Amino acid sequence: HKVTVLPGDGIGPEITKVALQVLEAAGKNHGEDFKIQEHLVGGAAIDATGQPLPEETLAACRASDAVLLAAIGGYKWDSLPSASRPEGGLLALRTGLNAFANLRPAVVLPQLADGSSLKREVVEGVDIMIVRELVGGIYFGQPRGFSANEHGHKTGYNTMVYSEPEVERIAHVAFDAARKRRKRLCSVDKANVLEVSQLWREVVTRVGKEYPDVELSHMYVDNAAMQLLRNPKEFDTVVTGNIFGDILSDEASMLTGSLGMLPSASIPSDGPGIFEPVHGSAPDIAGQDLANPMAMILSAAMMCRYGLNLPQVADDMEAAALLGLLPKWTPRIRGLVLLNLLVLLVATNWV
Amino acid sequence: HKVTVLPGDGIGPEITKVALQVLEAAGKNHGEDFKIQEHLVGGAAIDATGQPLPEETLAACRASDAVLLAAIGGYKWDSLPSASRPEGGLLALRTGLNAFANLRPAVVLPQLADGSSLKREVVEGVDIMIVRELVGGIYFGQPRGFSANEHGHKTGYNTMVYSEPEVERIAHVAFDAARKRRKRLCSVDKANVLEVSQLWREVVTRVGKEYPDVELSHMYVDNAAMQLLRNPKEFDTVVTGNIFGDILSDEASMLTGSLGMLPSASIPSDGPGIFEPVHGSAPDIAGQDLANPMAMILSAAMMCRYGLNLPQVADDMEAAALLGLLPKWTPRIRGLVLLNLLVLLVATNWV
Ligand SMILES: CC(C)[C@H](C(=O)O)[C@@H](O)C(=O)O
Ligand SMILES: CC(C)[C@H](C(=O)O)[C@@H](O)C(=O)O
Repeated sequence: HKVTVLPGDGIGPEITKVALQVLEAAGKNHGEDFKIQEHLVGGAAIDATGQPLPEETLAACRASDAVLLAAIGGYKWDSLPSASRPEGGLLALRTGLNAFANLRPAVVLPQLADGSSLKREVVEGVDIMIVRELVGGIYFGQPRGFSANEHGHKTGYNTMVYSEPEVERIAHVAFDAARKRRKRLCSVDKANVLEVSQLWREVVTRVGKEYPDVELSHMYVDNAAMQLLRNPKEFDTVVTGNIFGDILSDEASMLTGSLGMLPSASIPSDGPGIFEPVHGSAPDIAGQDLANPMAMILSAAMMCRYGLNLPQVADDMEAAALLGLLPKWTPRIRGLVLLNLLVLLVATNWV
Repeated sequence: HKVTVLPGDGIGPEITKVALQVLEAAGKNHGEDFKIQEHLVGGAAIDATGQPLPEETLAACRASDAVLLAAIGGYKWDSLPSASRPEGGLLALRTGLNAFANLRPAVVLPQLADGSSLKREVVEGVDIMIVRELVGGIYFGQPRGFSANEHGHKTGYNTMVYSEPEVERIAHVAFDAARKRRKRLCSVDKANVLEVSQLWREVVTRVGKEYPDVELSHMYVDNAAMQLLRNPKEFDTVVTGNIFGDILSDEASMLTGSLGMLPSASIPSDGPGIFEPVHGSAPDIAGQDLANPMAMILSAAMMCRYGLNLPQVADDMEAAALLGLLPKWTPRIRGLVLLNLLVLLVATNWV
């Protein structure tokens, strides 16, 4: 399995190291080998090449079976113009691979429920999958830019746009995901105000006819931001556009109390997907051996499950990650224990 | 003081009744008279005139000193095309009065802190003022609508646009509000992706130079959705655009645990402002005497403070509302007790 690894910036390299060790240990266990190639992205790539996504990196990603990305960005590059910032590399990678479906699970593990700023009884048992459209909407809509309006005043503008096929393909991914879960899909939009949302709602409703076993509902985005806090257990699978998904999935991540635990997958119709933690590059703690590698390990597990079709390797990695979750342990101790456990399991052929 | 009252739909009329009684009682106390005129808006107006905002209503609002609005909308009108829906009336009213500055306080009252789905220690002491731009951005940006893209596929699109003067005026309102509070303003945008946000950030920063006593920070909207849950006490005053404000203020309202307590004000440069509860029309409980009138009473108080320059009347109404907040009382009992208290205060001339 050819995996392109993009350690990126900040804590990226250190969490990548741990995740790769776990991946290789779990793989060996099932006779699976990974051909790992590291490449530059984000700030690290800007420093080396002047570009947040060098062509060589994109070419390597395209030629591989999956992309494992750690984190990008940092204060250092914050004053650059936006297209040449680390984030620009991330957006270019997503579109370059056409990774239109972003899957962001927000699962509250019983061991960690007390870490949430919400009450245990509100979040215990929460298991939400947010399916976010990732290569369309206002992030990429044309026209965009700066100009003068009819009064001669400078304006900035962006276009939130979706076409029927764009909505159809993400709707299919979401209905398929819901089908494998509790068979309930909530589509989030702002159809009481926006035409783009009216088209979204119309198309999702139509696609829903092909999934009579999945119960479809619609919710306005402001209400969804409320209901995620009021009664998060009501949600099973959620599908929404790029910017609403950006906001809601970050909000939902806080239900779990531990951003350091959340992986995500960004998947194209075919070709390699991108697997990455939800958290950022945390430049303030980089290099101090303080970063929690869990989300990165779980991202590698998601890669095995959704990107490489190695569900058993994924199972092992997730089980091992959960074993590491005893309370009061620091992220570092957790990582070490987990590694030792895996090495042990492999050495003794227990798994 | 000429007040146009728009009871609207659902629970609107019943909470209006209570709020007006409280308003008049508190007014008498200070020798202030209100000339109240009721008009139709929303679904009620659609049923009577076919229009969610009849011209007569808008004209009456324009000719008054302030507008007190209860709630609009209901299942009944949900299948109408969007411009002729109750919400269309609300949007037309906002633009018709040019009420560009929407102030949404999210204050956690100690008496109610346990009602939040967040932990008491996280929300106790929260006191946030969200200043949302209300008549621009993607809600009103042109072009908007439906068309076919270059591949001939049907698309829906909206434009998120802000001009310098639009950002300047809302920034001034926000800096002024922050100055009267804890002197910290957080501007929320998505400047790492959107040009419209880059203009927003640039202008807010420039306006900030005129307020050296106010500490300005910037935050991406996804991060703001997270930080509101992680550490809401960090926020003092927040300023943001129309759709981000819609989402974040609804999210913030859940910190308080009681949507039924939250008022809002929508204020123009000059002319009458609109004062309304944050909650909706709750058609499911309408007419059953179950609705909590508190947010409506507090909206009327906000009207006295910000719209009619009657701070003492506002003080009385807010104090009375707080008196009504003993635990375990049903909304109805609270309303009644409050009324009786006020009548008593007035009758005995205690206040
Ligand atoms: C870094 C940024 C461009 C990105 C986004 O907005 O998509 C991030 O917030 C995310 O959610 O992956
Ligand atoms: C009803 C709707 C159009 C409105 C809005 O989105 O502005 C509401 O959600 C609000 O926040 O007042």
